[in-house]
Formats: sequence, C-alpha cells, structure tokens
Amino acid sequence: MRSPFKRRLEACQRRLERTDAALAVLVPGPNLTYLTGFEESPSERHLLLFVPQVGDPVVVAPAMYDAQLRTLPIETLAVRLWDDDDDPLEEIEAVLAELLPADDERSGSSRDDAPTILVDDRMWATFTQDLRECAPAATFDLASRVLEDLRIRKDDVELAALRRAGEIADRVSLEIRSRGTELVGRTEAELANEIEGLLAEYGGGEPAFETIVASGPNGARPHHHSGDREIERGDPIVLDFGAFVDADLEDGTGRYPGDQTRTIVVGDEPADEYERYDRVHEVVREAQQLAVETVEPGVTAGAVDRAARSVIEDAGYGDEFVHRTGHGVGLEVHEPPYIVADNDRELEPGMVFSVEPGIYLEGEFGVRIEDLVVVTEDGAERLNESSRGWETGEIHS
Amino acid sequence: MRSPFKRRLEACQRRLERTDAALAVLVPGPNLTYLTGFEESPSERHLLLFVPQVGDPVVVAPAMYDAQLRTLPIETLAVRLWDDDDDPLEEIEAVLAELLPADDERSGSSRDDAPTILVDDRMWATFTQDLRECAPAATFDLASRVLEDLRIRKDDVELAALRRAGEIADRVSLEIRSRGTELVGRTEAELANEIEGLLAEYGGGEPAFETIVASGPNGARPHHHSGDREIERGDPIVLDFGAFVDADLEDGTGRYPGDQTRTIVVGDEPADEYERYDRVHEVVREAQQLAVETVEPGVTAGAVDRAARSVIEDAGYGDEFVHRTGHGVGLEVHEPPYIVADNDRELEPGMVFSVEPGIYLEGEFGVRIEDLVVVTEDGAERLNESSRGWETGEIHS
Repeated sequence: MRSPFKRRLEACQRRLERTDAALAVLVPGPNLTYLTGFEESPSERHLLLFVPQVGDPVVVAPAMYDAQLRTLPIETLAVRLWDDDDDPLEEIEAVLAELLPADDERSGSSRDDAPTILVDDRMWATFTQDLRECAPAATFDLASRVLEDLRIRKDDVELAALRRAGEIADRVSLEIRSRGTELVGRTEAELANEIEGLLAEYGGGEPAFETIVASGPNGARPHHHSGDREIERGDPIVLDFGAFVDADLEDGTGRYPGDQTRTIVVGDEPADEYERYDRVHEVVREAQQLAVETVEPGVTAGAVDRAARSVIEDAGYGDEFVHRTGHGVGLEVHEPPYIVADNDRELEPGMVFSVEPGIYLEGEFGVRIEDLVVVTEDGAERLNESSRGWETGEIHS
Repeated sequence: MRSPFKRRLEACQRRLERTDAALAVLVPGPNLTYLTGFEESPSERHLLLFVPQVGDPVVVAPAMYDAQLRTLPIETLAVRLWDDDDDPLEEIEAVLAELLPADDERSGSSRDDAPTILVDDRMWATFTQDLRECAPAATFDLASRVLEDLRIRKDDVELAALRRAGEIADRVSLEIRSRGTELVGRTEAELANEIEGLLAEYGGGEPAFETIVASGPNGARPHHHSGDREIERGDPIVLDFGAFVDADLEDGTGRYPGDQTRTIVVGDEPADEYERYDRVHEVVREAQQLAVETVEPGVTAGAVDRAARSVIEDAGYGDEFVHRTGHGVGLEVHEPPYIVADNDRELEPGMVFSVEPGIYLEGEFGVRIEDLVVVTEDGAERLNESSRGWETGEIHS
C-alpha cells in the first residue's frame, strides 16, 4: 500500500462529519502533505486546500503551481488557479459559497447553525483573517480536531521511513564516537557540519533540525546553537541530530526525521569532575531506560514523563531537568503526542515519539540521552540502537 | 547606528497609537527579529511578544529561552517564562489582563469600544485561536498595519547587508558563467549544489531560497525544483539563487537575502533554435531594463510591472509572462512592496525589491532576468551588476 492518500482523505472527511464541521482548510505544510503528498514551503501567496465534509476537495492556488497540482494522487481534486494580477480572495469567496451549506439549508440563522470551518493549525493569520472576511457567519476551529488522531498513528510507509532515519542517525553516532580524541580542537560548528555531512553520506536528506553540538558548559543549554568554542580533551559533549528520510511513496512526497541525542566525552575520561559527570550521566541513562520501559498501549503520555522525572528527582536533580521528556515525530519534528507530565492522552500502537530526559548544570555541563520509540502492541520498540554510554574512541559501553 | 532596535520599537508604539490599536502580538519570525533582534524558527511552543501602545513590552516564552531573551537589546523587556509542565495560556491571560485597557476605562461596552489586538501576519492559527479565547471581547487585525510601513524602507544597516548579498551573488554568477561548456553533463541538482557551495565560499550564509537550476524545457517552469536532468550543449539554463548575509548589528541579529537570476547558454550558441532564443532573451532583457528605468520615488509599484509587461506584450509574449514582475526583499525573501499590475503603492527611497520579468515557453525553454534594486532619491540603484547576457565561457556581453 504505497499510496495512502485516498484513504487519508476519506478518513478526514469521515471525521469532519463526526465533528459536524463543514470543511477543513489547509495550507502548505505537514497537514497538506499528509493528505495529498504535496510539499511546498509556506508562502505569502494564497494556496489553500478546501476539504468539504462531503464531495470533492478544491485547491485554490497560484497559477505557477498548476503542473505540480495536476500530478497529485487525488483524481477528484478541482484545481482553481489565480494569476498574480487576479485577486485570490474572489476565488476563495466563490469556493466557500459553493462548499458551505446555503443559509436556507440550515434550520435557522442563530449562531448555533453557523457552519464550522477548521483551519490548518499552522495557517498564517494573514490567511485566517481573509477566511473570516470571506465567511463572516462561520465559526472557526483548528484542523487538528480531525487530523491529529489520524496523523498520530503512523502507517507502515511512515514507520519504514522513520526506521531508516533512525538507522542513519545510529551510523553517524557510531562514526563520531569512534573518533574519540580526534575531535579535540574542532569547533562545535565544524563538528556540526561534519555530522550533517555524514548524515547525507549515509543516505539522509536535509538535517531535520539545527544540529546541536554543545560542548563543556554549553551543554547546559538544551537548545544551544553550535558555535566557535573549541572542543577540549575531557569535555562532555551533547550531540543532538537527525536527517529527514523520504517515505517510499509511489506518488506524492512526505519526509520523516531522525532525532537522536548522545552525550559523549572526548578523551578517556571527563576532565576534573570525572565522578560527578559519570554519576549524572548514569542518572539520565536510567531515567531514559525507565521511561522507555514504561511505554505501552493504554499508559498515558504523562506517565512516561513522570517515570523519567522520578529517577532524576530521586537523584536530586529535579530542578535541572528543565524540559518535557519528549515529543511526537512524523511529518513534523515536534508534533503530538507530547510527553509532558499533565498529558492524559493514552498511548496507542503506531505512535512515535522521543524519550529524551536531560540534566543541565549551568556553567558546568549538560547530559541528554534521546531515542525515538514506536509504541507496539505490548510495549515499545526503539528506533535508535547505538551505544548510549559516554565513552568514545576504543572504549565502548 | 548599529543598534536600531530601540528606535524601531518606539516607531511601532507610535503607530499603534495612531491606528488606535491596544497592542501588537508577535511570534518568532521576521517581525519579531525586526523589533528585537531575536531570531528563532516558529515552533509549537508559545513564544509571544506583546507590544502595548504605551509601556514596556512583555515576552511570554518557554523557560529554555531565558538566557537568549535576557541578552536582547531591549532593556525594558519583561520576560515571563513558562515550563513544560505549566499551561502557557494562564500566563498569556495574565499578560492580556495587564496590558488591555480594563472594561471600565472604555466608554461603553459596545463592539466599537473593544480593544484591537494586532497579530503577527505569520502567527499560526493555533496561537490566534488561543488569543481569541483569552481575549473574547477584542477585535483582531494584522500587525502589518503598523509594521509594514516601517519594514518597507530599509535603513543603512539593512542596505549594507543587502549590498553585500548582491555582491556575493554577482561573484557566483561570474564564476558559473566563466565555466561555459564545463557545465555540460552535470545534473541540475549538482550545479545547484555547486552554486550553493560558491555562495558560502564567497561569504554568504545559508541559501536564501531553494536554488533554481532549470535547464532546457525545465526553464519553462518558474519554480522548477533542480533535478536529475543533465545539462546539454546548447541548453538555455535559468539560474536563480542568493544567500543570506547577516546585518552588521552590535546586538541582536537579522539576515538579508541575495536574489539574482540569469539565463545563460552553455556552449557557444543555443541548440537548434538559436535565433528564437536570442530574440526572447533580448525581449526579457529590454523589459527588465525598462522596468528598472521606471523606478523612482512617487511612481507606483504597478507602473513598474506594467513597464516590464508592455515590452513583453509588444513582442507577442504577454501570455507567457505568467508571474508578477517582482517582490520586496528584507528580513523576508518575499515581502512588500509587490511589483504587480494593480498595486497603487507609491515607491519611496529605501524600498528594495526584485525586478524579474520572464518568458516561459512550455516544452521549450524559459528566460528570466532578475536584479534587486533599491529606490534612491531620484531613481534606482541595482544591487546586482553581473552580466545579464546569455553568453558563457570566453564570450561576455
């Protein structure tokens, strides 16, 4: 089943019916890619896909996308083009007039009967304001109401891409680790470049996010931007990286990220603070292990967070674990389910997310260990299997 | 004057007063970078800057951005952090309660007295929906109402960055052109990679957009994605590229793009269709020249488009010029002013935009020639000066 788009679109329409929404309006981005295989960056030009509860979808798009849109795997798609000297709002008004139930088909004129339009969660305000102007009687809500539950469970094509992305990250991790003290003297930015080069060499596409190389005290910043600091012998280094991998789709596109973090030490042992570092690393590793062991269908996302957090709190570092335990991955690098303490969402087979506890000691160092996991019928499967130890060079844990 | 942020913020507040808006709410992206020098990708975590008409701005942000936010060049900025286990909406509600005029300060309770909140044009619907929930009585409009006129006229720091980006693109253009028939046999994607490598080598940052190498018939697609097609002797090739350059700011950041298009022919002359190609190229070149000559303060953006279009229409290719003549550039690669027929906006000194007419002959080839220009006191200055001819190798026009 290499062309899931028809199935996804039908599932979306069934959910529109169930939530009593008249239509969903999507913009270039992960939702649109998920439903149609169309991939473009968001832009200032109006490109909107209208998915009605019943009937054929309609796309309003700049004329320059004509050829691209006609190759999409949705035979019933109506393509309505506008040129740079047209006003796209006229086209949008016409489409809404066709797709929204006419006033006299509704039982009354009260607010309760207003049609509900679900807009892409990532739609820019410039476009939501336009839609509100074109459909002043409508009620607006978010498209995630119908799409989140669909996207959160990955199908086989998606899982295959995520597995490949995991394998590529594993190979890079192994390669960097094996270099050991060769890394001394390189800047963080240089090492980040090297990692991105290796990701590409091993078959990855673009980096899925800004590669993080956070050495020594910089490791205490979870979202550090790799900079000019030269790596010193004994430095703990947080390495957080991954590349996109294209799903194996017959038609359309869709890319899925790798996302792995390891914290290693260059040289045989961490400078000065060896025992403290080793202890903190071990706490994080145990927290990550317990969190992964907690994952199974029916357990809540919050319980996974609390599992990781309990280990770190018991070790006295609760205040230094400053972020959530993880985030879902899919067409977005951060998407539901979020692995955060108050999330009562129950895990289901096919969900994929990161498990990445960390401890950040301001001015000293940081440790984070991250794998992606997929929820299976009775537990979890890690998508990353490279060593989680801190040792580099000849020494492996 | 290397730190323009205070001045920009004050200008924004004066404009809020003039438009009678209570506050502007901005998200990571060009508007936020423009006002504060803060640069981050949009993300699913609530990071919102509230700029009230009067008083100090407030930022609500994930705790992990604490250090980054405290280095911003706005001394009066109040930073309100939330952790992953907090509900950011509580913080947002509290900030709105502080910044919006209380009900009893307004003269009545009619809709006309509702406070107006201007939201970032690029704010995702997930955040605008949250704001509407937190401020149900407010009226919403777009932040461009106060920021567009500020951003559209570039200051000296911005112009310097744009000039440097132009020079880098010129050098790459010259280098590629000089290779002539060496390019035969390379794929489009390989040449695009090479161009991006040269942009970096000559001092550019990341590519400002996906580098376009559209060879032979692919040139007829204005937004072609460089692919596996091998360049043949005699092919016309559309090359559209540019890199970001960091503005020279003492504090904060801001990056500005290059954006140049040349259409060249590898080999001494275009295959088969030499005379036709040469004629089409000449028409586009004349159209581009006339459009640039039209630029001066007081002339409308539409007049610039019509100048280019008239040359192409007179030559009989009106239907093959399928896009607008240009777009503004600044912190965004596409921003106002848009050079499109019905745009009555008058040009002013300091505006920077592309002038890029093209002719696209489906199944055959395409020609586009593009320079960035800045409006001066009495005309226009091109930011690109590399040869606009089609000849490559030893031959230069």
